[in-house]
Amino acid sequence: MTEYSIGLDLGGTNLRAAAIDRAGNCLEKLATTTDPEQGKDAVLNDMAGVIERLRAKWTSGRLAGIGIGVPGFILLKEGIITNSNNLVCLENLPIRDEMEERLKTRVILENDANAAALGEKWMGAGREVDDLVLLTLGTGIGGGIIHGGNVLHGYLGMAGELGHVTVIPNGNPCGCGNRGCLEKHASATAVTAMARLLNLGDNLSSQQVYDMAKNGNEKARTIFATMGEALGIALATLVNAFNFPLYLLSGGVLGAWEFFAPTMLQVVRSRSFTFRTTNTRIEQAILGNEAGLYGAAYLPWVEAGTKALV
Amino acid sequence: MTEYSIGLDLGGTNLRAAAIDRAGNCLEKLATTTDPEQGKDAVLNDMAGVIERLRAKWTSGRLAGIGIGVPGFILLKEGIITNSNNLVCLENLPIRDEMEERLKTRVILENDANAAALGEKWMGAGREVDDLVLLTLGTGIGGGIIHGGNVLHGYLGMAGELGHVTVIPNGNPCGCGNRGCLEKHASATAVTAMARLLNLGDNLSSQQVYDMAKNGNEKARTIFATMGEALGIALATLVNAFNFPLYLLSGGVLGAWEFFAPTMLQVVRSRSFTFRTTNTRIEQAILGNEAGLYGAAYLPWVEAGTKALV
Repeated sequence: MTEYSIGLDLGGTNLRAAAIDRAGNCLEKLATTTDPEQGKDAVLNDMAGVIERLRAKWTSGRLAGIGIGVPGFILLKEGIITNSNNLVCLENLPIRDEMEERLKTRVILENDANAAALGEKWMGAGREVDDLVLLTLGTGIGGGIIHGGNVLHGYLGMAGELGHVTVIPNGNPCGCGNRGCLEKHASATAVTAMARLLNLGDNLSSQQVYDMAKNGNEKARTIFATMGEALGIALATLVNAFNFPLYLLSGGVLGAWEFFAPTMLQVVRSRSFTFRTTNTRIEQAILGNEAGLYGAAYLPWVEAGTKALV
Repeated sequence: MTEYSIGLDLGGTNLRAAAIDRAGNCLEKLATTTDPEQGKDAVLNDMAGVIERLRAKWTSGRLAGIGIGVPGFILLKEGIITNSNNLVCLENLPIRDEMEERLKTRVILENDANAAALGEKWMGAGREVDDLVLLTLGTGIGGGIIHGGNVLHGYLGMAGELGHVTVIPNGNPCGCGNRGCLEKHASATAVTAMARLLNLGDNLSSQQVYDMAKNGNEKARTIFATMGEALGIALATLVNAFNFPLYLLSGGVLGAWEFFAPTMLQVVRSRSFTFRTTNTRIEQAILGNEAGLYGAAYLPWVEAGTKALV
């Protein structure tokens, strides 16, 4: 009997779920949407619905468990999202318990960036290591820290908030209360804001700014170099703190690697003795959007202490 | 038969060793000096000598092992110091193997700040937790990260270099190649340098600057507030990254807590959502110089996987 797990990745309105076997083969994947404006019951019912659809189709297998990745700060023990920019309707509710009640089985809740980091460790760019840090460069910047093959959670489950590492003490203000957070200087949103400041356009996507850089626009290139500098400062600090063998970048802005990575790597080299003198790698993640799905599905096996054989 | 361990703490010229039993009782402590200018054999012989003196006196007990804390970047597997400001004569030598040969027994080498963090976890301010970060505020700033009751080493043993976290991207230059390292803005050396910049005196010790602050000198107070701000920036980043329950400060400048801590804590509060909304503690370490000695002695038991009963 095939053992499989179900992973669910909840974005703002995107809902994706997959049944994945223990060797990492994706048995089936479903993608749908949900509408947070309809309130928490609608969202939770949509989540339970997509999971039930997968479960109903794979009754021939043994379900190892269900893992769910969600954006926001998660209190691990309580299974609660305390703070989420995208899913205000789910904040401070016992999400995990509500899902367990709907599904009548154990559910594991995880921060989406942590899940993505775990996915890259299991089936992606981090397969060969047990310790890595992932930065997801999207609208914001998320972080996931894998140590000894498992997510480093901290005592409440709030570890890995690497988008809020300070890179410029008097930099742009952040909703978290800080100034100069990494995500205010190196996310897609930051790229858009810099494009506006340089009069390139008012609401350019990071993709549009990338296209301009590609076409030789110097201002657009400066934007990515500035983003690379912020990333370099943060990564140097992470390398000095963790001395892990691998640091991965993923997310929508990853496509601009050719324009931000040279500055980023040069800054890390100059700012980190450890990086300069060791084989520490800073690389692109390879699973893209799938990372969170794989990581969520991997959660039950990690919790069971039986790592997948891959 | 009492089981005991020997811990040795090697400073620049100070050599201290202690025989400590498994419950954390210090059976005996020896303090002497060594002269790095005499070369590596002299230093290693002095180290072996003080350990032998302890061992000879406690033949009635069973020696669990020998732990040695040294300043500098350590390659764990090789037992080599790759970079040390204070002990250039020991750099790139197989210190661990040389000591094992002299002592005819297993020796465990550890970075001094890591050892101090482990000591505080075992017998100090971190007894109640399994995860903590220690910053040692001395001539430089060292860092030690304890996770799950053991030192977080990274893949080579170089983790925890928290004195080299960037707090001010264009701040003071550092020997590590970076600019604005924490230790260039919050160590005893930084206090001395700021006192000079404010024309308080050319070579004031941090203690002298503290005395001036105590006597109401506003410039001296500004220096400690500036130091507190740098510490606050670094601690906010550490809190956001690790979400550990406890962050400890120790070292020679700790005595100025009353002058740097208010700014430091206010900065962490404003810069870290996690700190503001949880019971995360930032406190003074309590073992002082003894922390490194206790941590070094604890190393053999940690390695054996049998934590002391305390």
